[in-house]
Amino acid sequence: MSKPPLAERVKALAFDVFGTVVDWRGSIIRDATALGAKHGIDADWSRFADAWRAGYRPAMQRVRSGDLPWLKIDALHRLILDHLLEEYGIRGLAERDIDCLNRVWHRLDPWPDSVPGLTRLKTRYVITTLSNGNFSLLTNMAKRAALPWDCIVSAELFHHYKPDPETYLGTAELLSIAPAELMLVACHTDDLRAARTAGCQTGYVERPLELGPGHPPARVEDNEFDVMAGDFVELAERLGA
Amino acid sequence: MSKPPLAERVKALAFDVFGTVVDWRGSIIRDATALGAKHGIDADWSRFADAWRAGYRPAMQRVRSGDLPWLKIDALHRLILDHLLEEYGIRGLAERDIDCLNRVWHRLDPWPDSVPGLTRLKTRYVITTLSNGNFSLLTNMAKRAALPWDCIVSAELFHHYKPDPETYLGTAELLSIAPAELMLVACHTDDLRAARTAGCQTGYVERPLELGPGHPPARVEDNEFDVMAGDFVELAERLGA
Repeated sequence: MSKPPLAERVKALAFDVFGTVVDWRGSIIRDATALGAKHGIDADWSRFADAWRAGYRPAMQRVRSGDLPWLKIDALHRLILDHLLEEYGIRGLAERDIDCLNRVWHRLDPWPDSVPGLTRLKTRYVITTLSNGNFSLLTNMAKRAALPWDCIVSAELFHHYKPDPETYLGTAELLSIAPAELMLVACHTDDLRAARTAGCQTGYVERPLELGPGHPPARVEDNEFDVMAGDFVELAERLGA
Repeated sequence: MSKPPLAERVKALAFDVFGTVVDWRGSIIRDATALGAKHGIDADWSRFADAWRAGYRPAMQRVRSGDLPWLKIDALHRLILDHLLEEYGIRGLAERDIDCLNRVWHRLDPWPDSVPGLTRLKTRYVITTLSNGNFSLLTNMAKRAALPWDCIVSAELFHHYKPDPETYLGTAELLSIAPAELMLVACHTDDLRAARTAGCQTGYVERPLELGPGHPPARVEDNEFDVMAGDFVELAERLGA
């Protein structure tokens, strides 16, 4: 017996957020540049943004290893930021300014196709976040950027970061569906492969500018994932929404 | 020093749902009557709806006492429904029909002022559910009824039902705010009093028809709660939204 078409099997789509839905790099460069201009600080803000993001996996690893207790990503971002300000010799910022800069992760801009694509997908599927970003970060981001989620799901709800299987399985359980009825949508192959191992469907979306110009994403095999699309509008078309 | 006005202190509003946002009684009578007509079953569907709702506290109590493991409200509703069908002598319904009837709790209609009031409140505050309804129930309800929540919070996330303090404190923690920055909005005084004891602000909204005509709600003292309103639009006015 042949499987029913993918669009019939899938009931909900869970989206990776940083990179997949929003342009973290461009948004951080924008806000950090404005803060630097205001305070007369000159720095390579592109490199600063990349270093901030690069600190995120090692910081999560410190939680996984037990070196740190469970922390919201806001707190991990702040640990990394404090270290970076030191490294860049940036001194004299008020706590208010540092806290505001740390919350730039709540103010990330969506890619141009994100809202139109999600709006179409929402007509047919339950659409949710599934991000390591903490619950309030994702809620604030959605409110500011008008991301039309049906609900917010965060790794914080499970006290496990992606790509731990608890995150994918926990999302399906919250939505009262089977893992095979949930599709993870992401531009990151490690996230997608972990979701597949947990029994979920996978939707790969290309985000060639996530790391800035001249950093093409890792090569993906044809048909490695259940659906592959160039952006969210194409994803909506391929999923019949 | 005088406290800042309430509207400045409060950052998020968490809403009780059954009765406060949606008319569970009218919606259940509507769906049960339609099911009865389809299958030639005659019953007092108003009494049926009231009995279904009345079974909910004792069922939660069985979970609290350890007689039952943690269960989603969908499962508690089904336990009560199976018992009621037996009691009413309703036999021969297909599992599909019983399951569909059980999910009427996902299809409850909002009071007429709910969506307009929430839409206004959302411009100034983070607005979320805080309901004993399970996460998928609340998500499906919001999608069908176009309730404009910023996020969905359910007792399911804490494995504690309201009015346990873990639910109010857990909601504030997820939103990364202090309990005093969170206002619970409800038409039920026990819920509001428990939220106040946990350190939250309280907003009472009258729902005189929750239990049907001729069942006025319990008397509330003037100024017992931080804000009192006749409906959600009046609540928005009082909260400066």
